[in-house]
Amino acid sequence: MATGINRQVLLKSRPDGAPGLDNFELVESPVPEPGDGEVLMRTRYLSLDPYMRGRMSAAKSYAKPVEIGEPMVGGTVGEIVASRNARFAVGDIVTGFGGWQDYALSGGAGLRKLDPAAAPVTAALGVLGMPGMTAYTGLLEIGQPKAGETVAVAAASGAVGSVVGQIAKIKGCRAVGIAGGPDKCRHVVEELGFDACIDHRAPDLARQLEVACPAGIDVYFENVGGAVQQAVWPLLNDFARIPVCGLIAQYNAAQPMPGPDMFSVLRKRLTLRGFIVTDFAAKQADFLRDAGAWVRGGRLKYREDVVEGLENAPAAFLGLLQGKNFGKLLVKVA
Amino acid sequence: MATGINRQVLLKSRPDGAPGLDNFELVESPVPEPGDGEVLMRTRYLSLDPYMRGRMSAAKSYAKPVEIGEPMVGGTVGEIVASRNARFAVGDIVTGFGGWQDYALSGGAGLRKLDPAAAPVTAALGVLGMPGMTAYTGLLEIGQPKAGETVAVAAASGAVGSVVGQIAKIKGCRAVGIAGGPDKCRHVVEELGFDACIDHRAPDLARQLEVACPAGIDVYFENVGGAVQQAVWPLLNDFARIPVCGLIAQYNAAQPMPGPDMFSVLRKRLTLRGFIVTDFAAKQADFLRDAGAWVRGGRLKYREDVVEGLENAPAAFLGLLQGKNFGKLLVKVA
Repeated sequence: MATGINRQVLLKSRPDGAPGLDNFELVESPVPEPGDGEVLMRTRYLSLDPYMRGRMSAAKSYAKPVEIGEPMVGGTVGEIVASRNARFAVGDIVTGFGGWQDYALSGGAGLRKLDPAAAPVTAALGVLGMPGMTAYTGLLEIGQPKAGETVAVAAASGAVGSVVGQIAKIKGCRAVGIAGGPDKCRHVVEELGFDACIDHRAPDLARQLEVACPAGIDVYFENVGGAVQQAVWPLLNDFARIPVCGLIAQYNAAQPMPGPDMFSVLRKRLTLRGFIVTDFAAKQADFLRDAGAWVRGGRLKYREDVVEGLENAPAAFLGLLQGKNFGKLLVKVA
Repeated sequence: MATGINRQVLLKSRPDGAPGLDNFELVESPVPEPGDGEVLMRTRYLSLDPYMRGRMSAAKSYAKPVEIGEPMVGGTVGEIVASRNARFAVGDIVTGFGGWQDYALSGGAGLRKLDPAAAPVTAALGVLGMPGMTAYTGLLEIGQPKAGETVAVAAASGAVGSVVGQIAKIKGCRAVGIAGGPDKCRHVVEELGFDACIDHRAPDLARQLEVACPAGIDVYFENVGGAVQQAVWPLLNDFARIPVCGLIAQYNAAQPMPGPDMFSVLRKRLTLRGFIVTDFAAKQADFLRDAGAWVRGGRLKYREDVVEGLENAPAAFLGLLQGKNFGKLLVKVA
């Protein structure tokens, strides 16, 4: 049995607009003991992802909000340190939703064992985990990119966008990224192999994007909204597909921003479709097979931005919402 | 050979906002003679449809605009009065795009022969023509209604909306219409068999629609936009489908209206897809088979609003844009 202290980051209050450090609270409690059928996981890595902003709000959504006083939700990689479940042994490395805490109990249903010899375990929180599968399913199931088409994606150095563009390249498309600043743009082109990457802070974003997309845009993987969406919209080709995955640029807006004009949807015969990764749960085996092979073959690269210490998770998360991370944002908890 | 005068309604100028009678001009010219391979059609009926508003504008769209000084485009039913094409004989009744004129030449490519014994020939401009096929393909291909779901459609007494709701009923759905005024609403429920119909002029439209859709809305066939769209949006269920067919309430707006907020697209996993009927040209045989059988079986009813005289086409068309017609709007030309 583990003994000692379980640090937890709780949702202390709901943000009104942009969240701040005062919305979180770090508390300590005794490490819990697993009941019959349960395991106790020691968190090694915590994943920080944009969807968490939604869970901080009480607004109706596809998932229930985190309640005030509850630990923040989050994907984790952990080690089994106590087990009363025959499927898991002490020492197993697993991924699941342990949340923002040192230790988590689980009945085992949401846990998946990892093979540390097959890939670095942190990949299970990024390129081989929820963000990677979000990119894979949204791009392939909704975007349906065909060789020779142009795929545009924002947050192109991030956990989802980086995979979108690389899979687009694997499928024979032109991949055009949008990212924040010259370092990220350089990484996206030179390391990840995108054909072009535009700095979204550029005053002539729309013009640069037009130059980078000489044949227009056939798939726009929407994960930011806002100004990038506005720059992309006039470049969409007839029959373009827009998987709507996220709107990080709009998450803190007090009022919903108006959507793109419907005339273009009609005239260009656009398809917009919102999704979350769990809608495509049936594709997980395909994803793990394909993405695993691409990672091993060097065709799918990833970069991690690792912050040390659970106590730094709130600040790191606030930075994520402002695009301050560079690569998949993880917290090394232990 | 026909001799005499060909009256034509030309586009005289492009509207700035709502079109007026002064945008049209009625002119007379000699009846043309068919060249080799051509036929001359005498127009019997001219169809008036909302899409014509788009053709009056120079804005880029899926079809090229009517040029100033050209006859307005339009679907027609006509009689072959001279033929130098082996496929057509004098006396054949055909449907095609003859335009707003007494006589039209055709090479035959866009013409389809009608059997007046099978159905009234005017049906080829409505329930068994472009509007009916628009409803059929948009609802079934994009809307994908499942038995027990709720389908909502505006302009429910019109050429497209009336077919949408009746096919929804055939497929086992709850059909909820929105229409302009108590007479149309009564017709939609009592004659066409919708489960409910709301007057879009009602000050409490949103509340009435909510009452009429106790299980929310799974398919919203979008053909009006504007206030109806705003009333529908909060009622959409998760995974709702929105075939975007038209935006008649917005056609005269000088500025594009903002679209619905993208958060709902994301959170509810909505699918919006713009289309025009020609995108589904491959479905024409299915449509004619199914809709023909439904009409003969009394399961698909239609109402026509027939205006006499080509010279009255412009005023009738302006009325269509204001919802003044009641049923499929046709001009009896001869």
